[in-house]
Amino acid sequence: MQTGRVRKAPENFLDAAGIRQVNTEAKQGRRDFLRGAFAAAAAGAAAVAHAAPAPAEGDPDILQAPEHTTGLGQPVVTDGYGKPSKYEANVQRRQSPGLTQTRQASVSFAPLQSLFGIVTPSGLHFERHHQGWWDIDPSKHRLMVNGLVKAAKVFTMDELMRLPSVSRFHFIECGANTGMEWGNVAVPTCQYTHGMLSCSEFTGVPLITLLQMAGADLKKGRFVLAEGADGSSMTRTIPMELVESGQVLVAYGQNGEMLRPENGYPLRLVVPGVQGVSWVKYLRRIEVGDQPWATKDETVHYVDLMPDGTHRQYTSIQECKSVITTPSGGQVLMDQGFYSINGLAWSGRGKVTQVDVSTDGGRNWRAARLQGPVMDKCLTRFSLDWTWDGKPALLQSRARDESGYVQPSYRQLRGVRGTRSIYHNNAIQTWLVEESGEVKNVQLG
Amino acid sequence: MQTGRVRKAPENFLDAAGIRQVNTEAKQGRRDFLRGAFAAAAAGAAAVAHAAPAPAEGDPDILQAPEHTTGLGQPVVTDGYGKPSKYEANVQRRQSPGLTQTRQASVSFAPLQSLFGIVTPSGLHFERHHQGWWDIDPSKHRLMVNGLVKAAKVFTMDELMRLPSVSRFHFIECGANTGMEWGNVAVPTCQYTHGMLSCSEFTGVPLITLLQMAGADLKKGRFVLAEGADGSSMTRTIPMELVESGQVLVAYGQNGEMLRPENGYPLRLVVPGVQGVSWVKYLRRIEVGDQPWATKDETVHYVDLMPDGTHRQYTSIQECKSVITTPSGGQVLMDQGFYSINGLAWSGRGKVTQVDVSTDGGRNWRAARLQGPVMDKCLTRFSLDWTWDGKPALLQSRARDESGYVQPSYRQLRGVRGTRSIYHNNAIQTWLVEESGEVKNVQLG
Repeated sequence: MQTGRVRKAPENFLDAAGIRQVNTEAKQGRRDFLRGAFAAAAAGAAAVAHAAPAPAEGDPDILQAPEHTTGLGQPVVTDGYGKPSKYEANVQRRQSPGLTQTRQASVSFAPLQSLFGIVTPSGLHFERHHQGWWDIDPSKHRLMVNGLVKAAKVFTMDELMRLPSVSRFHFIECGANTGMEWGNVAVPTCQYTHGMLSCSEFTGVPLITLLQMAGADLKKGRFVLAEGADGSSMTRTIPMELVESGQVLVAYGQNGEMLRPENGYPLRLVVPGVQGVSWVKYLRRIEVGDQPWATKDETVHYVDLMPDGTHRQYTSIQECKSVITTPSGGQVLMDQGFYSINGLAWSGRGKVTQVDVSTDGGRNWRAARLQGPVMDKCLTRFSLDWTWDGKPALLQSRARDESGYVQPSYRQLRGVRGTRSIYHNNAIQTWLVEESGEVKNVQLG
Repeated sequence: MQTGRVRKAPENFLDAAGIRQVNTEAKQGRRDFLRGAFAAAAAGAAAVAHAAPAPAEGDPDILQAPEHTTGLGQPVVTDGYGKPSKYEANVQRRQSPGLTQTRQASVSFAPLQSLFGIVTPSGLHFERHHQGWWDIDPSKHRLMVNGLVKAAKVFTMDELMRLPSVSRFHFIECGANTGMEWGNVAVPTCQYTHGMLSCSEFTGVPLITLLQMAGADLKKGRFVLAEGADGSSMTRTIPMELVESGQVLVAYGQNGEMLRPENGYPLRLVVPGVQGVSWVKYLRRIEVGDQPWATKDETVHYVDLMPDGTHRQYTSIQECKSVITTPSGGQVLMDQGFYSINGLAWSGRGKVTQVDVSTDGGRNWRAARLQGPVMDKCLTRFSLDWTWDGKPALLQSRARDESGYVQPSYRQLRGVRGTRSIYHNNAIQTWLVEESGEVKNVQLG
C-alpha cells in the first residue's frame, strides 16, 4: 500500500442499489454476499499498482466468491519466520542510485512514506555500512572494557545477557540524513530525504554497569571510545556524562528479538539522541580515557564545514526535527477532500512537546495531534485533519522539544551553518501539492 | 540465543595474563588483538548449542583474525527485506505436536523465553487459524457496515486508510492460552504454556468513526457483530460500550507496517483487553444490532464449563496475569550466582500496577521492577535480581492491575472455576529450579 493511502479509491461507496443487493444476498445466507463490492472494485483495479490484472467488467470470474471465503487456507508455521504479504513487496528499503560508489560502503533508506506509528519493522530499518555487514557468531564474539579501569574485562555474550537489562524505545538517525538537501538536490521522496531514520525498542545492559564492574576511574576517565569488530574499524568518542546518565546501552535486543545482522548483531552501542555513527555496530571494545580520541570518523568524517571555513567537530546531538510522511513527495492526491496529514517528529534533546503544521508554506500554522506515548528521544507520530480544495498547497511541519528549541527554516539554518555541510540538516521540509495532485519536494527560503 | 541467556559462559573473564596479552597486542596495533579471547572461547565452544564445531585448542585457524575484522562484508539491501541472523534460527514459533488434528485449524506459539522488552516481532507473533490463513488482495477487499444504521456503507482499503488513524500498543492473548494447564498437563516450556500471547503497535481507524459515518443507532444498537472473510466464518459479538470508548480499532497496521497475512491482512479488529478470537481477522463486515448474536464461536466454543455444569458465556476480558520467561521451563542454570529473573505481566482491565516475585513457591514475595512505559492493556516487562544458591527453588510471579485485581493461585482459581475449563486460565505459574539447574513446569496448589 505504498502510495495507496492518499489515492482516491477507484470507486466511492456502493450506491443504494448495490447496498440493497449486498443486503439481500446476505439474508439469503449466500457466502458470496460481497460480490457486488467485488464487481465495483474490479472496474478500477488497474489503478492500483500492485493489483492483479483487472478482469473486464462482467467477467464471470469476479461473480464467483473468492476462494478464501470458502477454501482451506495455509497452515500454521508455513515458513517458520513470518514475512509480509506479497502485496507489500514494494515496501522496502532502497539504495539511492548513484549516491555511493559501492554497495558495501553505502546506505539504504527506510520507506517512511509507508510506515505507521513509531516502531520501524526490523526488516525495513535503514542501513549504513562502512565496510559491509556481517553475521557474526555470537558464541565467539567478545566485548572488552579497558583503559582507565582497575581491571580490564572481557565479556562473552552469555555473561552480558545474564546481567540486569533495560528496554527502551529510541530513534536512531544518521548524521547525514537529509544531507542531499543542503545542496538543494531535492530528491523526490521522503524515503530519500529522511529515510536514514528508524525507531526501535532496544534491550541491553547500561554501559555504566560494565564500567562499574571493571572499576572505571570516572574522575579522570571523562570519555569512552567505542570500537566495532568489522573491517571499517569504526571508533567513536562518547562523553562520560552520557554514559553516567544510564542512557547509553550495550544492546543485543531490537524490537523483541536479537539485533539484525545489518544493525550490528550480536552487539551494538545505543547512544540515545546522538547521531547513528556513534551507535557502534559489532561492538567489541570500550576504552575509558581522559580526552577525546580524534579518530578518523570524528575528524575527517561527520564534521560540519562552517561559513568561516572551520570544521565544527563532535556535534553529535540530533536536534529537533520533523517531516510529513503523508502526503509526501512522489505520492498523488487523486481528488479533493479530506486527508489526514501524518508525520514524524523527534529530538535528541528529549521529548517532542509540539508540532505545528502549515498548508500554505508557513504563513499559517495549526497545532497537530501528538500520538502517545510521547517518549524521550523517540519518534512521535503527529497528525492533522485537512481538506484539500484542489489548489496548490505547501505542506510543512515544525517541531518543538522540551528544551524549548524550535525546528528552523532553511533560511535560519543556513544563516548559522552556511551551505557547504553534509551533516546535521534539521530544517523544515516543504512538500508542494500541485493542482494535478502530484506531490513534489521543494525548498522554501 | 534461545537458552544462552541463563547458561554459564564457557569461560569466565580472561585471567590477568590473558588481559596483558590482549593489551600488548592492542598496543602493537595488531588487528587480531582479541585472539586471546577467542582462544579462551574455543575451549568451551562445544557447550553452546548453535556454535560451529570447536577447533582443538592450539588449532592454527583460531589464531587468525576472524574474516569480519578485515574483510569486505555484505552490501546494503542484500535481500530486500531483512531477516534475523542465521544463528537465531532456533527462535521461531512452534506448533505443539499432537495438539490439533490439522495444521490449518491450529495454533503456533510465540517463543516468549527468547524475547525481550514488550514488542513481539511480527515474524514471531503467535498464530491461531480456524481454517488456515490467506494473503488477500487488498485492492479487492471490502468492509461493510450494516444493521441498525441509517445508510449501510462499504469501504475500500484506500477509503479506510484516508481516515484519521491512531496507533496504540496492546497485547493480544488467545482465550485458550495456558489451557493445557487446567488438566495439569504441565507442558515443558513457557512457549507452550503462555505463547498464545503477543504484543504490537496497532494502527487503524476507531470503529466508532465508521459507525458514525454510517449513522449507527447507538441507542438501540448496543452490540456489533464482527465477521471475517475467511472460510471459518468467524463471527463475534462485541458490546457497544467497548466501541464507544474509542478503543476498538479497525486495524491495518502492525508494528509499523501492514498486518501480516497470518494476522489478518489487510484488516482485523483490535479489541484491547478482550480474548484474541474477538479480534476478527480478514474483517469484512460489522453489523450493528440490539442483542448478542450467539454465534457458534460464542456458544459452542470459547465458553467456560463451571463446577455446577453450566456454561459461562461472553467472558471475554483477559484477566490480570503474568509469567516468568527467564528462567523458565526447559532452560538450564549452569551455575550458582546472579540471575536476572525476567517476565511479562498484562491485564485486560487496564495497566499493571505491581508484580511480586517469589523464589520459594509463594512464602515470600519481593516487588519486581516494572519497565516503562507501562501502558493500558499492554504487556509490561518486569525483572528482579536473584542470586541462586544452588538449592531447589520455586519461581512464581503474581501481577496486580489498576482495578485492584490480583492474579490468583491455582487453588483460588479452581475454587471458583472447577477443573473442566479450557479457556481463561490466569493462575500463577510455577517453575521448579532443580539442584541440577534444570527448570521444570510444576503446579502448586
